[in-house]
Amino acid sequence: MTKVFASLGVSLDGFVAGPNARPGNPLGDGGTRIHRWMYDVGAWRERLGMSGGTTNVSGEVVEANFARAGAYVMGRRMFDEGEAGWPDPPPFRAPVFVVTHTPREPWARQGGTTFTFVTEGIEHALALAGAAAGDKDVQIAGGADTVRQFLNAGLVDDLEIHLAPLVLGGGVRLFDGVDTDLELEPDRVVDAREVTHVRYRVIR
Amino acid sequence: MTKVFASLGVSLDGFVAGPNARPGNPLGDGGTRIHRWMYDVGAWRERLGMSGGTTNVSGEVVEANFARAGAYVMGRRMFDEGEAGWPDPPPFRAPVFVVTHTPREPWARQGGTTFTFVTEGIEHALALAGAAAGDKDVQIAGGADTVRQFLNAGLVDDLEIHLAPLVLGGGVRLFDGVDTDLELEPDRVVDAREVTHVRYRVIR
Repeated sequence: MTKVFASLGVSLDGFVAGPNARPGNPLGDGGTRIHRWMYDVGAWRERLGMSGGTTNVSGEVVEANFARAGAYVMGRRMFDEGEAGWPDPPPFRAPVFVVTHTPREPWARQGGTTFTFVTEGIEHALALAGAAAGDKDVQIAGGADTVRQFLNAGLVDDLEIHLAPLVLGGGVRLFDGVDTDLELEPDRVVDAREVTHVRYRVIR
Repeated sequence: MTKVFASLGVSLDGFVAGPNARPGNPLGDGGTRIHRWMYDVGAWRERLGMSGGTTNVSGEVVEANFARAGAYVMGRRMFDEGEAGWPDPPPFRAPVFVVTHTPREPWARQGGTTFTFVTEGIEHALALAGAAAGDKDVQIAGGADTVRQFLNAGLVDDLEIHLAPLVLGGGVRLFDGVDTDLELEPDRVVDAREVTHVRYRVIR
């Protein structure tokens, strides 16, 4: 049974990106600090076409998430911000469905990543991703606004945060606008020193 | 060597209290949800003069924090909000130094808790608490604004959050106004199912 999950880096004060996130500055001012635990992780570097890096529990978390994701759903803003920056092949290596109001032809990249633009809303995008994922799961890749929409629609099975031990002070908050009746239960906690990975099961 | 620590319950969206916190509603609207993991914990119930309750890893965390605290520093607002609600004896069982602009005679309660009102600022309150703590540590009890002042003054050695798996949607944020150059390192993570206890060491 295909599950739907999200997995996001977040600062202690709740930000997934700093202020002024836009194409060319996709994580916003200071936002790379949220992900600094990841940049030297071998499993992440490998997805960017780089060799070497660290083998540690954070790498296992990264690798397991990539392995379970058979398809992705992404918001239009995240796509716009990432489009120029992702290498070819992009790190996804699976179909990506971009929720947008602007029709566009599918954009095939190397390595198995094809971006398909879906104008019929989040549920349709999820249905397409579910069909594409096969036996694997669907990852709601982001950004925060898209994850919020899926959470509020009751469409997420588990939500993982990578809690970075820093204060960003401003930017895009993950949980702003998330329904306060969301019920979560910690499902797996990984203490990786430089970051704390907490995965929550969404209770229906 | 006396250390200075803080330990606060916080929602996933970063709130230590809901909206409208005031005397009679000390945790704000919905704020009791942040601490619901604690209410049945035996070590907490014992501090409120109640018997029974659960013995679990969260209880060990609660008990260890009470055990290491030889004195407390508290903000005036937290005192005002808590004054009517704490039982006698209050849960602290140690000297409490309240940072305030309003002079008041010390208020001795049963069980070793005396509230002393300090009008000379946070550093003076900390000096008094440090002297009173003996071989034990000093806990900055709260609220958020007082913890922020101590963090920004570089006076905190470790900060523990009890991350509750829920979205509060509004209220008092723990990290608003905390300097973004604060450097933390996770020091101990306790996965207690209904809450995640993460203790950070402040890096000078």
